[in-house]
Amino acid sequence: MMETTTLKVSGMSCGGCVKSVTSVLLALPGVTQAEVSLEKGEATVEFEAGQVTREAMAQAIDDAGFEAS
Amino acid sequence: MMETTTLKVSGMSCGGCVKSVTSVLLALPGVTQAEVSLEKGEATVEFEAGQVTREAMAQAIDDAGFEAS
Repeated sequence: MMETTTLKVSGMSCGGCVKSVTSVLLALPGVTQAEVSLEKGEATVEFEAGQVTREAMAQAIDDAGFEAS
Repeated sequence: MMETTTLKVSGMSCGGCVKSVTSVLLALPGVTQAEVSLEKGEATVEFEAGQVTREAMAQAIDDAGFEAS
């Protein structure tokens, strides 16, 4: 079943940052779509429930040098 | 034995990008230091030879949404 969640992301300050956060989210197995907004400081992620967790998404963002909550 | 290598990195356009590239490099086991220059578009990495390869560094940068060569 597909689900959608939104994470707050801080530390992004340009389009390169947005692309980076998008890339690490899409690299997670189970993530099917990621829309990252610089203005809102948010990432909205569509994912297959049971294949990936919100915690894994936040960890991937943190590992890429940004802060997710 | 410690070695140093420099990779060209494109796609960085602000300090957030620099921090992102630095983070993914430092997360690799065997990498002991990473200095990333936005102006030069370069990452200079100090690493323990045999523990990590230049290819792994480039892959980590690519996975973070930038392009390394």
